[in-house]
Amino acid sequence: MALVVQKYGGTSVGDVPCIDRVARRIARRHERGDQLVVVVSAMSGVTDSLLRLARQVHPDPMGRELDLLLATGEQTTTALLAMALHAKKTRAVPLTGAQAGIVTDGSHTRARILNIGPKKIHRFLDEGAVVVVAGFQGQDLQGSITTLGRGGSDLTAIALAAVLKADLCEIYTDVDGVYTADPRMVPNAAKLDEISYDEMLEMAASGSKVMQSRSVEFAKKFRVVFEVRSSFSDAQGTIVKAETKSMEDVVVRGISLERNQAKLTIPAVPDHPGVAAKIFSSIADHGVSVDMIVQNVSDRGLTDITFTVNRDSLSRALRIIEPAAQELRAAPPRAQEGVAKLSVVGIGMRSHSGVAARLFQALADAGVNVQMISTSEIKISVVIDEQSAEKAVRTVHEAFGLAGAALPEAKKAG
Amino acid sequence: MALVVQKYGGTSVGDVPCIDRVARRIARRHERGDQLVVVVSAMSGVTDSLLRLARQVHPDPMGRELDLLLATGEQTTTALLAMALHAKKTRAVPLTGAQAGIVTDGSHTRARILNIGPKKIHRFLDEGAVVVVAGFQGQDLQGSITTLGRGGSDLTAIALAAVLKADLCEIYTDVDGVYTADPRMVPNAAKLDEISYDEMLEMAASGSKVMQSRSVEFAKKFRVVFEVRSSFSDAQGTIVKAETKSMEDVVVRGISLERNQAKLTIPAVPDHPGVAAKIFSSIADHGVSVDMIVQNVSDRGLTDITFTVNRDSLSRALRIIEPAAQELRAAPPRAQEGVAKLSVVGIGMRSHSGVAARLFQALADAGVNVQMISTSEIKISVVIDEQSAEKAVRTVHEAFGLAGAALPEAKKAG
Repeated sequence: MALVVQKYGGTSVGDVPCIDRVARRIARRHERGDQLVVVVSAMSGVTDSLLRLARQVHPDPMGRELDLLLATGEQTTTALLAMALHAKKTRAVPLTGAQAGIVTDGSHTRARILNIGPKKIHRFLDEGAVVVVAGFQGQDLQGSITTLGRGGSDLTAIALAAVLKADLCEIYTDVDGVYTADPRMVPNAAKLDEISYDEMLEMAASGSKVMQSRSVEFAKKFRVVFEVRSSFSDAQGTIVKAETKSMEDVVVRGISLERNQAKLTIPAVPDHPGVAAKIFSSIADHGVSVDMIVQNVSDRGLTDITFTVNRDSLSRALRIIEPAAQELRAAPPRAQEGVAKLSVVGIGMRSHSGVAARLFQALADAGVNVQMISTSEIKISVVIDEQSAEKAVRTVHEAFGLAGAALPEAKKAG
Repeated sequence: MALVVQKYGGTSVGDVPCIDRVARRIARRHERGDQLVVVVSAMSGVTDSLLRLARQVHPDPMGRELDLLLATGEQTTTALLAMALHAKKTRAVPLTGAQAGIVTDGSHTRARILNIGPKKIHRFLDEGAVVVVAGFQGQDLQGSITTLGRGGSDLTAIALAAVLKADLCEIYTDVDGVYTADPRMVPNAAKLDEISYDEMLEMAASGSKVMQSRSVEFAKKFRVVFEVRSSFSDAQGTIVKAETKSMEDVVVRGISLERNQAKLTIPAVPDHPGVAAKIFSSIADHGVSVDMIVQNVSDRGLTDITFTVNRDSLSRALRIIEPAAQELRAAPPRAQEGVAKLSVVGIGMRSHSGVAARLFQALADAGVNVQMISTSEIKISVVIDEQSAEKAVRTVHEAFGLAGAALPEAKKAG
């Protein structure tokens, strides 16, 4: 008998037939004797329509009342799934986040989990019920309903798995695992059997949309092994876990691509201590997130600083750095849209050399110009023209022999 | 500075413009310096569509999960109204029933309020906020969300007014008060300035749809004076309160009509002790509610028992009493649809005689045949043909001079 935490995302519970299918899957599993805690998201589209409704009564809805409103989305799915389970003669107890004992800080719409009191869940599990928990929500110490922000339901599931010491944590979504590259772009992309937390984090940070970094970080911190898999099939998914020795045999685990990027350059910045701090703290103060930052060696006391932001933030970022550049007596900033970030990720990079060279050669062969380069211990990212991005991903995927990376015999070919 | 509990029903908060109008009304009142606790229903239609959704996943949704689902309706309005108040620069704190301290028993979908802990509400009021409370819901002692059943939001408001010792309790609805008769039927029906709890109860029990009996009973028990008024106008409504001496001057307060009734007769029932008990307990066991029951004096040890039920319950009631009648060796039961119940209500009846005579004369003049009669201390009800019901109401309204009953100079004419 295993204790399993499952999480079903918005598309997996998107309508009544979907909820019914999920209920059937849970009922079968429950009959096999497993103890199940099931975390659900709002039905797809519900959170957006609640937000639209909120914006009709307040231009900028926030705080306590927005969370109270948004929490109804997951509460609804929780109730419906419990009913669907009852219709299949499977005992189920629905719980809101607060009832499940999820205590958060008071930062509405992006609360952090402080602590989970699992007593109630344990009691219902012991009584033989499936426990259905509303994801994405909790309660602060004053008893006010909070929500956890983007990816919040994944976080609920992983946090519950940690606290309950679950044997398994299964994240059901609309893709059947983590791939070496986006299969819509690279038809021969391979599904990965396993991936390390760090690789998953780098994939998430560089455009792979499977999961938010935050949940992966939480899983890494509390050593929660989880599986990303599809609620629409019975296929094995991808196990995300701490790295093992054998993982290092694969140099590159996968390729990710982030589109809709923009590049900003401040040329001829005086190369003094504190200059970069000045620029980037003013950007951060305005809530714009910066992704890659590159600064090259200085030339006669002046250097160029280039960074990327999401295209949507470009005009705001420009408005912020223009006065800053003036104040620093740098040249006027230059902006460029239509760029994308391609990243190759793999913990094997640490022990294998020549990865960067192979990447650049592949891009050169495909005639793709590299505009920026940034590296971390297990990732190399390049900024390239968005128009050649798909071709670049396919070429690089090929160059690292990833099409067969998920097959055992090909693992050593990396 | 008065402490006021207001309740807005589903049509009063039916859509965003309605919520906005209610918010404006509340903001104005708050600016005048009153402390406000506002109880809201689900937006009209929401509860029904949640029920439809539930029935798609379970043929007979019930219990804990149905309450969790239904509670989202009021939770949504609560959040939206608080946002709308913020948009008007009025501080507001939204609370679910559970957060407002409403503790109920565990009878899901028809829970009873056990107790209200008003500490949190008092704290937010003291901080100068409008407290918006989700009506119709509470939390049982195990922390499970419960709903209070039909008329639950009225009950929430009246219970809060009792516990908070509010100066005023205002029930906002889509009619502007209690009338001497349904104004759609009787164009010159008059709005009542005041009505006693008992009269209001008899009106509710006999078809007046303004409020459920349960909330009025609660108000009577805890001596909560409340006003029924419209959220669509500023007109004074009807005050419902304990009877006063002067109320007795009016013989008949109003006329109510309940349509869609059916009449069942079991003829030639042996007139022994326990026979009626046998019949009606078997009906009650099957959850059918019986309204009027009439049994006349017996003739040679046999009597006829006649009772009315809602037309929807007729076939079920027949199926129940047929075997019972057989067992009692009574004649086969007879059913008749297409009847209605007309009631005249007034505490003045206690001290004025001739009310029944005047009622029967009016009906006779209108050519309406009386099929059943039943009286209580402050009400006389008759069952008549449904087709002549509207004419009967107008005739009786006229006969008791009710068109002017709400006007001070006419009060003594009753």
